[in-house]
Amino acid sequence: MTKTVTVLSGLIRPLVENRLPEWVEPRFFQSKDEAMALAPEAEIGWFDMYDKRDMAAAIGAATRLKWLNSIYAGVDGMPLDLLRERGTVVTNGAGINAITIAEYVVMGMLTVAKGYREVVRAQERHEWLTDSPGKVELYGSKALLLGYGAIGKLVEERLKAFAVDVTVVRRSPGPNTLSPDQWRARLGEFDWVILAVPATAETDGMIGTDELAAMKPSATLINIARGTVVDQAALVEALKAKRIAAAFLDVTTPEPLPAGDPLWGLDNAHVTMHLSGRAQDKMFMRSAARFLENLDRWHRGEAVEPRVDLALGY
Amino acid sequence: MTKTVTVLSGLIRPLVENRLPEWVEPRFFQSKDEAMALAPEAEIGWFDMYDKRDMAAAIGAATRLKWLNSIYAGVDGMPLDLLRERGTVVTNGAGINAITIAEYVVMGMLTVAKGYREVVRAQERHEWLTDSPGKVELYGSKALLLGYGAIGKLVEERLKAFAVDVTVVRRSPGPNTLSPDQWRARLGEFDWVILAVPATAETDGMIGTDELAAMKPSATLINIARGTVVDQAALVEALKAKRIAAAFLDVTTPEPLPAGDPLWGLDNAHVTMHLSGRAQDKMFMRSAARFLENLDRWHRGEAVEPRVDLALGY
Repeated sequence: MTKTVTVLSGLIRPLVENRLPEWVEPRFFQSKDEAMALAPEAEIGWFDMYDKRDMAAAIGAATRLKWLNSIYAGVDGMPLDLLRERGTVVTNGAGINAITIAEYVVMGMLTVAKGYREVVRAQERHEWLTDSPGKVELYGSKALLLGYGAIGKLVEERLKAFAVDVTVVRRSPGPNTLSPDQWRARLGEFDWVILAVPATAETDGMIGTDELAAMKPSATLINIARGTVVDQAALVEALKAKRIAAAFLDVTTPEPLPAGDPLWGLDNAHVTMHLSGRAQDKMFMRSAARFLENLDRWHRGEAVEPRVDLALGY
Repeated sequence: MTKTVTVLSGLIRPLVENRLPEWVEPRFFQSKDEAMALAPEAEIGWFDMYDKRDMAAAIGAATRLKWLNSIYAGVDGMPLDLLRERGTVVTNGAGINAITIAEYVVMGMLTVAKGYREVVRAQERHEWLTDSPGKVELYGSKALLLGYGAIGKLVEERLKAFAVDVTVVRRSPGPNTLSPDQWRARLGEFDWVILAVPATAETDGMIGTDELAAMKPSATLINIARGTVVDQAALVEALKAKRIAAAFLDVTTPEPLPAGDPLWGLDNAHVTMHLSGRAQDKMFMRSAARFLENLDRWHRGEAVEPRVDLALGY
């Protein structure tokens, strides 16, 4: 039997090595150079690397690649046009981190609502505060949820338990739903605007000066999508002028955020360094389990999932 | 018509003054001395003061008092035996703050789970962390909930949306329920031990050296009840020795916590200064609305609520 050359990040090795089917010939890489050397033989590849440019280079060199897998939900660092030309099937990590990211969103809302950062600072000073620095309840507040994928749905479930009135933006009509051409006119109704959209041409800069001006002055923007979804210069201006109450930003432009960026020091900007998906220890396990299931499907000629639409970019 | 002398804290004045029924003769106090002077005439009283001893003194002087109201859920600062002897009806603020306290509990769990305090500190240093200081998910974790009053029920509802497996302690048997003589033997099963019990003789020091030793080393203790429910010296020792992972303490002994107390500086103690109930701006409104409804009931000879059982102390 001819085996299928499968090139995998060494990080995933301990989780899959003893569980790979016989038809797979695994080759693990530990560095960019090893990835580049192994790539041309790869029929199946899992090329995630910390630097997205290294990953893109390895994918470029993988001219025989039929199926590309990634642990990440966002595929904006991949050469999507090239993969589309080649007809490569791409599966991503959509949903793998969704639970912990949804938990992070609720944490962000609660910490902003209660002014929790000031409580942390008071403890450092050994100072007993006599009143709460934040006095907002989630209960009865209104949230606009842009992006209704795996993360958005989990956020909605959790917020409903807090009696938050959640409105989602999606093409198909439904209860508590606004269409993509309706939400801008309604921005002023919401206490929370939550960005959980994929990074695509359509979502690039979707929150800018006009959208920020349309929000309630007491509203908070939560971004767990991608930094590019927000016009960051406009956001900094809006935060400085207190045109919105706060922003809880798991993502920024660029990442890492340079030490001199004004966002770091704004008292109403909460920067969480793209940690939301990392705030759990099950990501690799879940991703490995899904990959092993997909290998079986692939071998049987069935569809692997979740498959990225390379034209839409998610 | 003889009017009923009703002595009320001046803090509540703007919320009730124009809405009091005609049969009420309101007298508002602004200080302890005014409260003491007005108390002997009071048939109905609302004697909340920041210093619980001042409140107890005024209650002591209110020898004609038939009904005592309080905005607070905890009545441990009241002379309960005296009130019982006198046959005074006591209504408290049970449930008034329950929503915001339940929100605070979830915030505490999430911030401990994700190591959020370290994220706050990293932002202050303008430092982009590359990994999450906390990697716990609420999802699939197990919580023991001691105290199943208004707060406990709201905490349970919220935690269920996070897929937390919640076990409650109560006398009446039910699903996911342990009786008061069962929970100690099962402490080692839980990731979260949440104290939401009233402060009574029965709950005094209910978490001590033995209970802390029985908890999982990875478990977190959440106390939003009263400081006295926990043997604080034993807790400090357990936290220092990392016998449990963390404690999120909205309440301490004493309050305010002295600047020199070891709890302030422990990296696994999260001190939130009894702010949980104050992290909203609707407490006075809700409490005033309830009091006005109770006045109508009182006048019609109906039961006012929620009535404190002076023998049980809650």
